[in-house]
Amino acid sequence: MRVGNLEGRAVLVDGDRALDVERASGGQFGPNPQGVFDRWDQFRGWAAGQDPSAGEPFEVERLGPPVPRPPQVFGIGLNYRDHAEEADLEIPDEPMVFTKFPSSVTGPYAEVQLPSDRCDFEVELVVVIGRGGHRISPEQAWEHVAGLTVGQDLSDRRVQFRGKPPQFSMGKSFPGFAPIGPVLVTPDEFGDRDRLAIRCSSGEETLQDGTTADMIFPVAELITRLSAIVRLLPGDLIFTGTPAGVGAVRDPRRYLSPGEVIVSGIEGIGQMRTTLV
Amino acid sequence: MRVGNLEGRAVLVDGDRALDVERASGGQFGPNPQGVFDRWDQFRGWAAGQDPSAGEPFEVERLGPPVPRPPQVFGIGLNYRDHAEEADLEIPDEPMVFTKFPSSVTGPYAEVQLPSDRCDFEVELVVVIGRGGHRISPEQAWEHVAGLTVGQDLSDRRVQFRGKPPQFSMGKSFPGFAPIGPVLVTPDEFGDRDRLAIRCSSGEETLQDGTTADMIFPVAELITRLSAIVRLLPGDLIFTGTPAGVGAVRDPRRYLSPGEVIVSGIEGIGQMRTTLV
Repeated sequence: MRVGNLEGRAVLVDGDRALDVERASGGQFGPNPQGVFDRWDQFRGWAAGQDPSAGEPFEVERLGPPVPRPPQVFGIGLNYRDHAEEADLEIPDEPMVFTKFPSSVTGPYAEVQLPSDRCDFEVELVVVIGRGGHRISPEQAWEHVAGLTVGQDLSDRRVQFRGKPPQFSMGKSFPGFAPIGPVLVTPDEFGDRDRLAIRCSSGEETLQDGTTADMIFPVAELITRLSAIVRLLPGDLIFTGTPAGVGAVRDPRRYLSPGEVIVSGIEGIGQMRTTLV
Repeated sequence: MRVGNLEGRAVLVDGDRALDVERASGGQFGPNPQGVFDRWDQFRGWAAGQDPSAGEPFEVERLGPPVPRPPQVFGIGLNYRDHAEEADLEIPDEPMVFTKFPSSVTGPYAEVQLPSDRCDFEVELVVVIGRGGHRISPEQAWEHVAGLTVGQDLSDRRVQFRGKPPQFSMGKSFPGFAPIGPVLVTPDEFGDRDRLAIRCSSGEETLQDGTTADMIFPVAELITRLSAIVRLLPGDLIFTGTPAGVGAVRDPRRYLSPGEVIVSGIEGIGQMRTTLV
Protein backbone atom coordinates (compact mmCIF):
# COMPACT_ATOMS: atom_id res chain seq x y z
CA MET A 1 0.00 0.00 0.00
CA ARG A 2 1.22 3.47 -0.93
CA VAL A 3 -0.11 6.50 0.95
CA GLY A 4 0.42 10.06 -0.19
CA ASN A 5 -0.49 13.66 0.51
CA LEU A 6 -2.10 15.26 -2.54
CA GLU A 7 -2.35 18.99 -1.91
CA GLY A 8 -3.15 18.45 1.75
CA ARG A 9 -5.46 15.45 1.36
CA ALA A 10 -4.63 11.84 2.23
CA VAL A 11 -4.69 9.55 -0.83
CA LEU A 12 -3.95 5.93 -1.70
CA VAL A 13 -1.62 5.85 -4.69
CA ASP A 14 -1.21 3.35 -7.50
CA GLY A 15 1.06 4.52 -10.33
CA ASP A 16 -0.40 7.76 -11.68
CA ARG A 17 -3.76 7.26 -9.94
CA ALA A 18 -4.76 8.55 -6.51
CA LEU A 19 -7.83 7.58 -4.49
CA ASP A 20 -9.02 10.31 -2.11
CA VAL A 21 -9.23 8.77 1.38
CA GLU A 22 -11.98 10.96 2.79
CA ARG A 23 -14.28 10.54 -0.19
CA ALA A 24 -13.63 6.80 -0.61
CA SER A 25 -14.19 6.17 3.12
CA GLY A 26 -17.32 8.31 3.33
CA GLY A 27 -15.57 10.55 5.85
CA GLN A 28 -14.38 7.72 8.12
CA PHE A 29 -10.78 8.84 7.52
CA GLY A 30 -9.10 11.98 6.27
CA PRO A 31 -8.75 14.41 4.70
CA ASN A 32 -5.76 15.38 6.95
CA PRO A 33 -2.79 13.19 5.94
CA GLN A 34 -1.43 13.39 9.50
CA GLY A 35 -4.68 12.06 10.95
CA VAL A 36 -4.40 8.56 9.48
CA PHE A 37 -1.52 7.73 11.84
CA ASP A 38 -3.61 8.27 14.96
CA ARG A 39 -5.81 5.35 13.87
CA TRP A 40 -3.27 3.52 11.77
CA ASP A 41 -4.40 -0.07 12.38
CA GLN A 42 -8.02 0.74 11.49
CA PHE A 43 -6.92 2.83 8.52
CA ARG A 44 -4.74 0.05 7.21
CA GLY A 45 -7.56 -2.45 7.55
CA TRP A 46 -9.89 -0.19 5.61
CA ALA A 47 -7.28 0.64 2.94
CA ALA A 48 -6.56 -3.04 2.28
CA GLY A 49 -10.04 -3.37 0.79
CA GLN A 50 -9.67 -0.42 -1.60
CA ASP A 51 -8.57 -0.31 -5.23
CA PRO A 52 -6.46 2.84 -5.70
CA SER A 53 -6.03 2.11 -9.43
CA ALA A 54 -9.69 3.19 -9.71
CA GLY A 55 -8.68 6.66 -8.45
CA GLU A 56 -8.13 9.87 -10.42
CA PRO A 57 -5.04 10.61 -12.53
CA PHE A 58 -2.71 13.11 -10.84
CA GLU A 59 0.62 14.81 -11.33
CA VAL A 60 3.34 13.72 -8.93
CA GLU A 61 4.55 17.31 -8.56
CA ARG A 62 1.38 18.02 -6.58
CA LEU A 63 2.41 15.60 -3.82
CA GLY A 64 3.23 17.10 -0.43
CA PRO A 65 5.03 15.40 2.46
CA PRO A 66 3.24 12.13 3.37
CA VAL A 67 3.67 13.10 7.05
CA PRO A 68 3.25 16.89 7.12
CA ARG A 69 3.44 17.52 10.87
CA PRO A 70 5.18 14.67 12.70
CA PRO A 71 4.90 14.95 16.50
CA GLN A 72 8.55 13.90 16.91
CA VAL A 73 11.43 13.59 14.43
CA PHE A 74 14.47 11.52 15.33
CA GLY A 75 17.66 11.91 13.33
CA ILE A 76 20.42 9.32 13.59
CA GLY A 77 23.99 10.38 12.98
CA LEU A 78 26.68 8.09 11.64
CA ASN A 79 24.55 4.99 11.07
CA TYR A 80 26.26 3.55 7.96
CA ARG A 81 29.61 1.79 8.15
CA ASP A 82 30.87 3.34 4.89
CA HIS A 83 29.92 6.85 6.07
CA ALA A 84 31.65 6.34 9.46
CA GLU A 85 34.76 5.23 7.52
CA GLU A 86 34.78 8.18 5.10
CA ALA A 87 34.30 10.58 8.05
CA ASP A 88 37.16 8.78 9.83
CA LEU A 89 35.00 8.36 12.94
CA GLU A 90 34.59 5.33 15.18
CA ILE A 91 31.58 3.06 14.80
CA PRO A 92 29.32 4.25 17.65
CA ASP A 93 28.15 1.93 20.47
CA GLU A 94 24.85 3.79 20.75
CA PRO A 95 22.80 5.58 18.09
CA MET A 96 23.72 9.27 18.00
CA VAL A 97 20.35 11.04 18.17
CA PHE A 98 19.40 14.60 17.21
CA THR A 99 16.13 16.11 16.02
CA LYS A 100 15.11 17.84 12.85
CA PHE A 101 12.54 20.31 14.21
CA PRO A 102 9.20 19.42 12.55
CA SER A 103 8.78 22.82 10.85
CA SER A 104 11.65 21.76 8.54
CA VAL A 105 9.48 19.10 6.85
CA THR A 106 8.59 19.76 3.21
CA GLY A 107 7.33 17.85 0.19
CA PRO A 108 9.10 15.62 -2.34
CA TYR A 109 9.15 18.23 -5.14
CA ALA A 110 9.75 21.32 -3.06
CA GLU A 111 12.11 24.20 -3.63
CA VAL A 112 14.45 24.68 -0.69
CA GLN A 113 16.32 27.86 0.08
CA LEU A 114 20.04 27.48 0.86
CA PRO A 115 20.98 29.69 3.82
CA SER A 116 24.74 29.44 3.17
CA ASP A 117 27.32 28.07 0.74
CA ARG A 118 28.06 25.13 3.07
CA CYS A 119 24.84 23.14 2.71
CA ASP A 120 25.08 19.40 2.25
CA PHE A 121 22.92 16.49 1.08
CA GLU A 122 22.22 13.20 2.91
CA VAL A 123 19.73 10.80 1.38
CA GLU A 124 18.06 8.70 4.10
CA LEU A 125 15.51 5.97 4.63
CA VAL A 126 12.76 7.47 6.79
CA VAL A 127 10.65 5.27 9.05
CA VAL A 128 7.09 6.42 9.84
CA ILE A 129 5.65 5.14 13.13
CA GLY A 130 2.07 3.86 13.02
CA ARG A 131 1.41 2.35 16.42
CA GLY A 132 3.15 4.31 19.20
CA GLY A 133 4.80 2.71 22.21
CA HIS A 134 7.45 2.66 24.90
CA ARG A 135 10.05 -0.06 25.42
CA ILE A 136 9.36 -1.88 22.17
CA SER A 137 11.17 -5.21 21.71
CA PRO A 138 13.19 -5.87 18.53
CA GLU A 139 10.76 -8.70 17.66
CA GLN A 140 7.78 -6.32 17.87
CA ALA A 141 9.48 -3.30 16.29
CA TRP A 142 8.25 -3.68 12.70
CA GLU A 143 4.66 -4.02 13.97
CA HIS A 144 4.95 -0.35 15.00
CA VAL A 145 6.00 0.84 11.53
CA ALA A 146 3.34 2.37 9.30
CA GLY A 147 5.71 2.55 6.38
CA LEU A 148 8.94 3.73 4.82
CA THR A 149 9.63 6.80 2.75
CA VAL A 150 12.60 8.68 1.28
CA GLY A 151 14.09 11.68 3.07
CA GLN A 152 16.80 14.25 2.61
CA ASP A 153 18.58 15.27 5.80
CA LEU A 154 19.77 18.63 4.48
CA SER A 155 22.38 20.27 6.71
CA ASP A 156 24.05 23.65 6.94
CA ARG A 157 27.52 22.52 8.08
CA ARG A 158 28.38 26.10 9.08
CA VAL A 159 25.64 26.11 11.74
CA GLN A 160 26.05 22.44 12.61
CA PHE A 161 29.69 22.72 13.58
CA ARG A 162 29.92 26.25 14.95
CA GLY A 163 29.08 25.34 18.57
CA LYS A 164 30.46 23.10 21.23
CA PRO A 165 29.02 20.49 21.40
CA PRO A 166 28.13 20.59 17.68
CA GLN A 167 24.64 21.90 16.92
CA PHE A 168 23.19 19.06 14.85
CA SER A 169 19.53 19.87 15.58
CA MET A 170 19.88 23.51 14.54
CA GLY A 171 22.10 22.98 11.47
CA LYS A 172 19.54 20.48 10.12
CA SER A 173 16.31 22.41 10.78
CA PHE A 174 16.09 25.38 8.41
CA PRO A 175 12.70 25.59 6.64
CA GLY A 176 12.55 22.88 3.99
CA PHE A 177 15.58 20.98 5.29
CA ALA A 178 13.54 17.78 5.70
CA PRO A 179 11.97 16.89 2.33
CA ILE A 180 10.14 13.53 2.53
CA GLY A 181 8.20 11.44 0.02
CA PRO A 182 7.10 10.86 -2.63
CA VAL A 183 4.79 8.45 -0.74
CA LEU A 184 4.82 6.18 2.31
CA VAL A 185 5.10 2.48 1.42
CA THR A 186 3.94 -0.17 3.90
CA PRO A 187 6.55 -2.75 4.98
CA ASP A 188 4.76 -5.71 3.33
CA GLU A 189 5.52 -4.22 -0.11
CA PHE A 190 9.26 -4.92 0.15
CA GLY A 191 11.07 -8.17 -0.67
CA ASP A 192 13.81 -7.48 1.91
CA ARG A 193 12.91 -4.37 3.88
CA ASP A 194 16.39 -4.28 5.45
CA ARG A 195 18.30 -4.26 2.15
CA LEU A 196 17.21 -1.45 -0.14
CA ALA A 197 19.32 0.38 -2.72
CA ILE A 198 19.59 4.06 -1.75
CA ARG A 199 20.85 6.77 -4.13
CA CYS A 200 21.27 10.49 -4.51
CA SER A 201 22.31 12.31 -7.67
CA SER A 202 22.58 15.77 -9.18
CA GLY A 203 22.15 15.74 -12.98
CA GLU A 204 24.60 13.13 -14.28
CA GLU A 205 26.64 13.14 -11.10
CA THR A 206 26.07 10.32 -8.61
CA LEU A 207 26.43 11.76 -5.12
CA GLN A 208 25.57 8.72 -2.98
CA ASP A 209 25.00 5.08 -3.93
CA GLY A 210 24.57 2.60 -1.10
CA THR A 211 22.37 0.00 0.52
CA THR A 212 20.37 0.19 3.74
CA ALA A 213 21.86 -3.23 4.60
CA ASP A 214 24.97 -1.26 5.57
CA MET A 215 23.25 0.34 8.60
CA ILE A 216 25.05 -0.07 11.92
CA PHE A 217 21.70 -0.02 13.79
CA PRO A 218 19.02 -1.43 11.46
CA VAL A 219 15.41 -0.19 11.64
CA ALA A 220 14.17 -2.65 14.28
CA GLU A 221 17.12 -1.95 16.54
CA LEU A 222 16.69 1.83 16.22
CA ILE A 223 13.04 1.52 17.26
CA THR A 224 14.01 -0.60 20.27
CA ARG A 225 16.79 1.74 21.37
CA LEU A 226 14.85 4.96 20.86
CA SER A 227 11.73 3.62 22.57
CA ALA A 228 13.80 2.34 25.50
CA ILE A 229 13.96 6.05 26.41
CA VAL A 230 11.36 8.07 24.50
CA ARG A 231 7.70 7.12 24.07
CA LEU A 232 7.11 6.91 20.31
CA LEU A 233 3.94 8.51 18.95
CA PRO A 234 1.83 7.76 15.85
CA GLY A 235 3.24 9.73 12.92
CA ASP A 236 6.76 10.08 14.33
CA LEU A 237 9.63 10.02 11.83
CA ILE A 238 13.03 8.39 12.15
CA PHE A 239 15.68 9.64 9.71
CA THR A 240 17.90 6.57 9.84
CA GLY A 241 21.25 7.99 8.74
CA THR A 242 23.04 8.35 5.43
CA PRO A 243 25.48 6.23 3.38
CA ALA A 244 28.89 7.45 2.16
CA GLY A 245 29.35 10.31 -0.28
CA VAL A 246 28.27 13.42 1.63
CA GLY A 247 29.90 16.65 0.52
CA ALA A 248 31.51 17.78 3.77
CA VAL A 249 33.96 14.86 3.97
CA ARG A 250 34.99 14.88 0.29
CA ASP A 251 38.27 16.28 -0.88
CA PRO A 252 37.65 18.86 -2.23
CA ARG A 253 34.41 19.51 -0.38
CA ARG A 254 31.28 19.44 -2.49
CA TYR A 255 28.45 21.64 -1.25
CA LEU A 256 25.07 22.40 -2.82
CA SER A 257 24.57 25.37 -5.15
CA PRO A 258 21.49 27.44 -5.97
CA GLY A 259 19.83 26.13 -9.13
CA GLU A 260 20.97 22.57 -8.49
CA VAL A 261 18.32 19.83 -8.54
CA ILE A 262 19.02 16.72 -6.48
CA VAL A 263 17.21 13.43 -6.95
CA SER A 264 16.95 11.15 -3.91
CA GLY A 265 15.61 7.64 -4.29
CA ILE A 266 15.18 4.32 -2.53
CA GLU A 267 14.36 0.96 -4.12
CA GLY A 268 10.67 0.13 -3.85
CA ILE A 269 9.63 3.60 -2.72
CA GLY A 270 10.44 6.08 -5.48
CA GLN A 271 12.27 9.32 -6.04
CA MET A 272 12.11 12.87 -4.73
CA ARG A 273 13.34 15.85 -6.72
CA THR A 274 14.50 18.81 -4.65
CA THR A 275 15.32 22.16 -6.27
CA LEU A 276 17.79 24.32 -4.36
CA VAL A 277 17.40 28.07 -4.62
CA MET B 1 -4.35 36.35 32.20
CA ARG B 2 -3.69 32.81 33.44
CA VAL B 3 -4.51 29.86 31.20
CA GLY B 4 -4.59 26.28 32.42
CA ASN B 5 -5.44 22.73 31.42
CA LEU B 6 -8.03 21.26 33.77
CA GLU B 7 -8.29 17.55 33.06
CA GLY B 8 -7.82 18.09 29.34
CA ARG B 9 -9.95 21.23 28.98
CA ALA B 10 -8.65 24.78 28.45
CA VAL B 11 -9.59 27.09 31.35
CA LEU B 12 -8.97 30.66 32.45
CA VAL B 13 -7.75 30.65 36.04
CA ASP B 14 -8.14 33.17 38.85
CA GLY B 15 -7.00 31.89 42.25
CA ASP B 16 -8.99 28.75 43.04
CA ARG B 17 -11.57 29.42 40.29
CA ALA B 18 -11.47 28.17 36.70
CA LEU B 19 -13.64 29.29 33.80
CA ASP B 20 -14.15 26.61 31.14
CA VAL B 21 -13.11 28.13 27.78
CA GLU B 22 -15.36 26.07 25.54
CA ARG B 23 -18.48 26.67 27.59
CA ALA B 24 -17.80 30.36 28.23
CA SER B 25 -17.04 30.99 24.53
CA GLY B 26 -20.04 29.04 23.29
CA GLY B 27 -17.72 26.66 21.44
CA GLN B 28 -15.71 29.40 19.74
CA PHE B 29 -12.54 28.09 21.47
CA GLY B 30 -11.56 24.86 23.14
CA PRO B 31 -11.88 22.43 24.76
CA ASN B 32 -8.40 21.26 23.60
CA PRO B 33 -5.80 23.29 25.54
CA GLN B 34 -3.35 22.96 22.63
CA GLY B 35 -5.88 24.47 20.20
CA VAL B 36 -5.87 27.96 21.71
CA PHE B 37 -2.34 28.59 20.45
CA ASP B 38 -3.31 28.14 16.79
CA ARG B 39 -5.58 31.20 17.13
CA TRP B 40 -3.75 32.90 19.97
CA ASP B 41 -4.43 36.56 19.07
CA GLN B 42 -8.18 35.95 18.70
CA PHE B 43 -8.25 33.84 21.86
CA ARG B 44 -6.45 36.49 23.83
CA GLY B 45 -8.84 39.17 22.61
CA TRP B 46 -11.81 37.05 23.65
CA ALA B 47 -10.28 36.11 27.02
CA ALA B 48 -9.60 39.75 27.90
CA GLY B 49 -13.34 40.29 28.16
CA GLN B 50 -13.95 37.36 30.54
CA ASP B 51 -14.11 37.23 34.33
CA PRO B 52 -12.48 33.97 35.45
CA SER B 53 -13.25 34.72 39.11
CA ALA B 54 -16.85 33.85 38.17
CA GLY B 55 -15.69 30.31 37.28
CA GLU B 56 -16.01 27.09 39.28
CA PRO B 57 -13.82 26.20 42.27
CA PHE B 58 -11.23 23.53 41.42
CA GLU B 59 -8.31 21.63 42.97
CA VAL B 60 -4.91 22.54 41.60
CA GLU B 61 -3.86 18.88 41.60
CA ARG B 62 -6.25 18.35 38.68
CA LEU B 63 -4.24 20.67 36.43
CA GLY B 64 -2.45 19.09 33.50
CA PRO B 65 0.31 20.64 31.37
CA PRO B 66 -0.89 24.00 29.94
CA VAL B 67 0.68 22.97 26.61
CA PRO B 68 0.07 19.22 26.37
CA ARG B 69 1.44 18.54 22.89
CA PRO B 70 3.86 21.26 21.75
CA PRO B 71 4.82 20.95 18.07
CA GLN B 72 8.46 21.80 18.89
CA VAL B 73 10.37 21.94 22.17
CA PHE B 74 13.66 23.83 22.33
CA GLY B 75 15.99 23.27 25.27
CA ILE B 76 18.83 25.70 25.94
CA GLY B 77 21.95 24.44 27.67
CA LEU B 78 24.17 26.59 29.86
CA ASN B 79 22.14 29.81 29.74
CA TYR B 80 22.83 31.19 33.24
CA ARG B 81 26.14 32.73 34.18
CA ASP B 82 26.17 31.16 37.65
CA HIS B 83 25.46 27.70 36.21
CA ALA B 84 28.22 28.07 33.60
CA GLU B 85 30.58 29.00 36.43
CA GLU B 86 29.63 26.09 38.71
CA ALA B 87 30.01 23.69 35.75
CA ASP B 88 33.40 25.29 35.00
CA LEU B 89 32.40 25.83 31.37
CA GLU B 90 32.93 28.85 29.16
CA ILE B 91 30.10 31.29 28.53
CA PRO B 92 28.84 30.21 25.08
CA ASP B 93 28.80 32.56 22.06
CA GLU B 94 25.68 30.89 20.70
CA PRO B 95 22.76 29.25 22.52
CA MET B 96 23.37 25.51 22.88
CA VAL B 97 20.17 23.94 21.59
CA PHE B 98 18.75 20.46 22.15
CA THR B 99 15.19 19.13 22.19
CA LYS B 100 13.07 17.51 24.83
CA PHE B 101 10.97 15.18 22.68
CA PRO B 102 7.32 16.28 23.17
CA SER B 103 6.15 12.93 24.61
CA SER B 104 8.18 13.84 27.74
CA VAL B 105 5.73 16.65 28.64
CA THR B 106 3.65 16.08 31.77
CA GLY B 107 1.59 18.09 34.25
CA PRO B 108 2.57 20.25 37.25
CA TYR B 109 1.53 17.65 39.88
CA ALA B 110 2.61 14.51 38.06
CA GLU B 111 4.50 11.50 39.36
CA VAL B 112 7.64 10.86 37.34
CA GLN B 113 9.47 7.57 37.19
CA LEU B 114 13.25 7.72 37.68
CA PRO B 115 14.97 5.45 35.16
CA SER B 116 18.31 5.48 37.02
CA ASP B 117 20.06 6.72 40.18
CA ARG B 118 21.68 9.58 38.23
CA CYS B 119 18.64 11.75 37.54
CA ASP B 120 18.92 15.49 38.08
CA PHE B 121 16.67 18.52 38.53
CA GLU B 122 16.80 21.83 36.57
CA VAL B 123 14.09 24.39 37.24
CA GLU B 124 13.52 26.56 34.16
CA LEU B 125 11.45 29.42 32.84
CA VAL B 126 9.48 28.05 29.88
CA VAL B 127 8.36 30.35 27.07
CA VAL B 128 5.20 29.41 25.15
CA ILE B 129 4.99 30.74 21.58
CA GLY B 130 1.64 32.23 20.53
CA ARG B 131 2.24 33.73 17.10
CA GLY B 132 4.68 31.64 15.05
CA GLY B 133 7.30 33.12 12.76
CA HIS B 134 10.69 32.97 11.07
CA ARG B 135 13.47 35.54 11.47
CA ILE B 136 11.86 37.44 14.32
CA SER B 137 13.62 40.67 15.38
CA PRO B 138 14.51 41.25 19.06
CA GLU B 139 12.10 44.20 19.12
CA GLN B 140 9.23 42.01 17.91
CA ALA B 141 10.13 38.92 19.95
CA TRP B 142 7.82 39.40 22.94
CA GLU B 143 4.87 39.92 20.56
CA HIS B 144 5.26 36.26 19.64
CA VAL B 145 5.07 35.04 23.25
CA ALA B 146 1.72 33.68 24.47
CA GLY B 147 2.99 33.39 28.02
CA LEU B 148 5.46 32.05 30.53
CA THR B 149 5.26 28.95 32.68
CA VAL B 150 7.46 26.91 35.02
CA GLY B 151 9.27 23.80 33.78
CA GLN B 152 11.55 21.10 35.09
CA ASP B 153 14.19 19.95 32.65
CA LEU B 154 14.70 16.54 34.25
CA SER B 155 17.79 14.73 32.99
CA ASP B 156 19.24 11.25 33.27
CA ARG B 157 22.94 12.16 33.34
CA ARG B 158 23.89 8.53 32.64
CA VAL B 159 22.17 8.65 29.24
CA GLN B 160 23.05 12.30 28.58
CA PHE B 161 26.80 11.78 28.85
CA ARG B 162 27.25 8.23 27.60
CA GLY B 163 27.71 9.11 23.93
CA LYS B 164 30.00 11.29 21.89
CA PRO B 165 28.86 13.96 21.28
CA PRO B 166 26.78 13.96 24.51
CA GLN B 167 23.17 12.86 24.06
CA PHE B 168 21.28 15.79 25.58
CA SER B 169 18.03 15.20 23.69
CA MET B 170 17.80 11.56 24.75
CA GLY B 171 18.90 11.98 28.37
CA LYS B 172 16.20 14.63 28.83
CA SER B 173 13.26 12.89 27.13
CA PHE B 174 12.12 9.97 29.26
CA PRO B 175 8.33 9.97 29.82
CA GLY B 176 7.46 12.71 32.32
CA PHE B 177 10.87 14.41 32.09
CA ALA B 178 9.27 17.73 31.07
CA PRO B 179 6.72 18.76 33.76
CA ILE B 180 5.26 22.21 33.00
CA GLY B 181 2.73 24.42 34.76
CA PRO B 182 0.85 25.11 36.90
CA VAL B 183 -0.55 27.63 34.37
CA LEU B 184 0.59 29.86 31.52
CA VAL B 185 0.79 33.56 32.50
CA THR B 186 0.67 36.25 29.81
CA PRO B 187 3.66 38.66 29.66
CA ASP B 188 1.59 41.72 30.67
CA GLU B 189 1.08 40.22 34.15
CA PHE B 190 4.73 40.71 35.13
CA GLY B 191 6.36 43.84 36.51
CA ASP B 192 9.76 43.00 35.00
CA ARG B 193 9.36 39.92 32.82
CA ASP B 194 13.15 39.61 32.46
CA ARG B 195 13.87 39.50 36.21
CA LEU B 196 11.95 36.76 37.97
CA ALA B 197 12.97 34.85 41.08
CA ILE B 198 13.33 31.14 40.21
CA ARG B 199 13.57 28.40 42.86
CA CYS B 200 13.63 24.67 43.32
CA SER B 201 13.47 22.82 46.63
CA SER B 202 13.03 19.36 48.10
CA GLY B 203 11.39 19.47 51.54
CA GLU B 204 13.42 21.92 53.63
CA GLU B 205 16.39 21.76 51.27
CA THR B 206 16.83 24.60 48.76
CA LEU B 207 18.23 23.11 45.56
CA GLN B 208 18.30 26.18 43.30
CA ASP B 209 17.64 29.83 44.03
CA GLY B 210 18.32 32.32 41.24
CA THR B 211 16.92 35.02 39.02
CA THR B 212 16.09 34.92 35.33
CA ALA B 213 17.98 38.23 35.05
CA ASP B 214 21.11 36.07 35.12
CA MET B 215 20.39 34.56 31.68
CA ILE B 216 23.19 34.84 29.14
CA PHE B 217 20.66 34.96 26.28
CA PRO B 218 17.43 36.52 27.60
CA VAL B 219 14.02 35.50 26.24
CA ALA B 220 13.86 38.02 23.37
CA GLU B 221 17.34 37.10 22.19
CA LEU B 222 16.60 33.37 22.33
CA ILE B 223 13.53 33.89 20.15
CA THR B 224 15.56 35.90 17.65
CA ARG B 225 18.40 33.40 17.48
CA LEU B 226 16.21 30.29 17.31
CA SER B 227 13.92 31.81 14.69
CA ALA B 228 16.91 32.92 12.60
CA ILE B 229 17.13 29.22 11.75
CA VAL B 230 13.94 27.36 12.69
CA ARG B 231 10.40 28.53 11.92
CA LEU B 232 8.62 28.81 15.28
CA LEU B 233 5.10 27.41 15.50
CA PRO B 234 2.14 28.32 17.75
CA GLY B 235 2.38 26.31 20.96
CA ASP B 236 6.14 25.73 20.77
CA LEU B 237 8.04 25.64 24.07
CA ILE B 238 11.44 27.07 24.89
CA PHE B 239 13.08 25.70 28.04
CA THR B 240 15.39 28.64 28.69
CA GLY B 241 18.11 27.02 30.81
CA THR B 242 18.68 26.60 34.53
CA PRO B 243 20.43 28.59 37.28
CA ALA B 244 23.16 27.20 39.53
CA GLY B 245 22.64 24.35 41.96
CA VAL B 246 22.07 21.29 39.78
CA GLY B 247 23.06 17.96 41.33
CA ALA B 248 25.58 16.71 38.78
CA VAL B 249 28.13 19.47 39.40
CA ARG B 250 27.89 19.45 43.24
CA ASP B 251 30.52 17.87 45.40
CA PRO B 252 29.33 15.36 46.45
CA ARG B 253 26.85 14.87 43.63
CA ARG B 254 23.21 15.13 44.60
CA TYR B 255 20.83 13.09 42.48
CA LEU B 256 17.09 12.55 42.85
CA SER B 257 15.69 9.63 44.87
CA PRO B 258 12.39 7.75 44.61
CA GLY B 259 9.84 9.19 47.06
CA GLU B 260 11.34 12.66 46.86
CA VAL B 261 8.98 15.56 46.07
CA ILE B 262 10.49 18.61 44.38
CA VAL B 263 8.84 21.99 44.27
CA SER B 264 9.71 24.26 41.32
CA GLY B 265 8.53 27.84 41.29
CA ILE B 266 8.89 31.17 39.52
CA GLU B 267 7.80 34.57 40.79
CA GLY B 268 4.46 35.63 39.33
CA ILE B 269 3.65 32.21 37.88
CA GLY B 270 3.37 29.70 40.72
CA GLN B 271 4.73 26.36 41.82
CA MET B 272 4.78 22.82 40.51
CA ARG B 273 5.12 19.79 42.75
CA THR B 274 6.73 16.76 41.15
CA THR B 275 6.77 13.38 42.92
CA LEU B 276 9.59 11.08 41.90
CA VAL B 277 8.92 7.37 42.00
